[in-house]
Amino acid sequence: MRGEFDWIRDLRRRVGAPRDGRDTVRVGIGDDCAVVSVPSDSELLLTTDLLVEGVHFVLDGLRPEDLGWKALAVSVSDVAAMGGRAAHAVVSVALRPEQTGAFADGLLGGLLACADRYGVSLVGGDTTGTPGPVVVNVALTGFAPRGRAVLRSGARPGDAICVTGALGGSILGRHLRVEPRQDEALALVQGNEVHAMIDVSDGLSSDLGHVVDLSEVGAEVYEDRIPIHDDAVALAARDGRPAIEHALTDGEDFELLFTLPAESADRLEREGIAGTRVTRVGRITRDRRYVLLPREGAAADSRPMERKGYDHFRRA
Amino acid sequence: MRGEFDWIRDLRRRVGAPRDGRDTVRVGIGDDCAVVSVPSDSELLLTTDLLVEGVHFVLDGLRPEDLGWKALAVSVSDVAAMGGRAAHAVVSVALRPEQTGAFADGLLGGLLACADRYGVSLVGGDTTGTPGPVVVNVALTGFAPRGRAVLRSGARPGDAICVTGALGGSILGRHLRVEPRQDEALALVQGNEVHAMIDVSDGLSSDLGHVVDLSEVGAEVYEDRIPIHDDAVALAARDGRPAIEHALTDGEDFELLFTLPAESADRLEREGIAGTRVTRVGRITRDRRYVLLPREGAAADSRPMERKGYDHFRRA
Repeated sequence: MRGEFDWIRDLRRRVGAPRDGRDTVRVGIGDDCAVVSVPSDSELLLTTDLLVEGVHFVLDGLRPEDLGWKALAVSVSDVAAMGGRAAHAVVSVALRPEQTGAFADGLLGGLLACADRYGVSLVGGDTTGTPGPVVVNVALTGFAPRGRAVLRSGARPGDAICVTGALGGSILGRHLRVEPRQDEALALVQGNEVHAMIDVSDGLSSDLGHVVDLSEVGAEVYEDRIPIHDDAVALAARDGRPAIEHALTDGEDFELLFTLPAESADRLEREGIAGTRVTRVGRITRDRRYVLLPREGAAADSRPMERKGYDHFRRA
Repeated sequence: MRGEFDWIRDLRRRVGAPRDGRDTVRVGIGDDCAVVSVPSDSELLLTTDLLVEGVHFVLDGLRPEDLGWKALAVSVSDVAAMGGRAAHAVVSVALRPEQTGAFADGLLGGLLACADRYGVSLVGGDTTGTPGPVVVNVALTGFAPRGRAVLRSGARPGDAICVTGALGGSILGRHLRVEPRQDEALALVQGNEVHAMIDVSDGLSSDLGHVVDLSEVGAEVYEDRIPIHDDAVALAARDGRPAIEHALTDGEDFELLFTLPAESADRLEREGIAGTRVTRVGRITRDRRYVLLPREGAAADSRPMERKGYDHFRRA
């Protein structure tokens, strides 16, 4: 964290008291490092997300508040996907000269609003000018009870595969005003034996693929059970691609995708979690095939799940 | 940490076992977050540094290994300046298509070499393509004994002001092959009552200025005691600016600048620390003037220390 700039000073003033409500911040913005404490019963989670103009967003029509919110929210979603609670963020920003006024203020406002919503303390950062695309990087810590962070690799044959909310068509607006499912994740791991979890960022078919690979299992997904978002339906009406495809591959839903014993799934389907709908969409199998079935039991009509992972290096 | 790419896979393979030698990494690269533990007697340090092509470096003639090394080393220097030990890094990289081959490999090699040297575990990251400048962001954790991190704000009137190594002219090469003074910092805080510390990134005059401001004290600096690096002399011969000016304002020295009781300073001057020279360059004063004296006791000839802090927003 080199240099001390107006934006940083303003950040420091606006950040004010630590926001994590648990008094873990001893030194925030303004020294060589932040100094924080980690509860002795917790492990530390670490994640980082880089957003680059022209790759992850375009400025035309974009409210800087939305960019600030999203930059932090996508990392909060990663922490939630471990069953953790987000704690401390350090934020790096590169702006062109014309963006160092109102744009920078809006960006900061969005960051702080998201931090406030999810109990995150902004404890440091780095700022620079740039001749090129706007860049925002967030690195975020979180806490999970010791030994109980939920990994991608823990899915077991026979587990139900569940997802929160509904999927697809996030490009119509939800991709910006991301609402990480932290409350849902914390309630989930509190009352259930969740074996594996990931957030849906690349699309259910890709993200469940990571779980399947790392857990060394297979999965069958039931097409008739995928919760299709209204946005996916609206988008399908525009572009002619089936809504189910949007639901499986659009990504940026930031819903939780998790596996757990079937009996827990039944209860979650009835009751939801933290006010959010839960849908059982499939089953983990010992057989390592990764397939889509029209409905449960229709194995004869299975076809391979298509993974449409997004390779930024190849795309750029 | 979204997406799973070749570079990340390669990183994962090359990172191999955790490198912090203290078994604090439970989950490294490849899940939504890394999962690490923090020793119960330690506080956590957090810092981040963003490097942007065209602002912090140019690619022409640059070895990607040097860029990777530097990106991590500057953050290690921040942790050292708190009297801490670097622990876990998450790295974000944006590259143009033509850089995703040998360049990306070199960058990774430099990151890993630096991680190895300073006991850092690379536990995660994010990669993306970009149409613009190369971007490398490092976020780094460190450990400091609970309650004993050394802040910029602790300098006390009467303290000696000391610096490791020699200053100025880093642009001749040391600005790339940065050698953070972590060993020196750990030895320093072990055996001495260090009141305040910062690493020299913007130049002694600016960085001591931060200490003076945050500690609400003044300082006198003795011109005849500044350890001038050979590179500053070489640069002075080229550009005609006095070597002492280079030593005070060039920056990117990444030496430690610290204050402590005068008697400790005498011992450190005699003995050095961890094999590195220590020089007493001035004194903290209650009087809040921040001045340069030709030599100790020559207060009549004092002149204000010039701060040449670097405002990246204004420069870009």
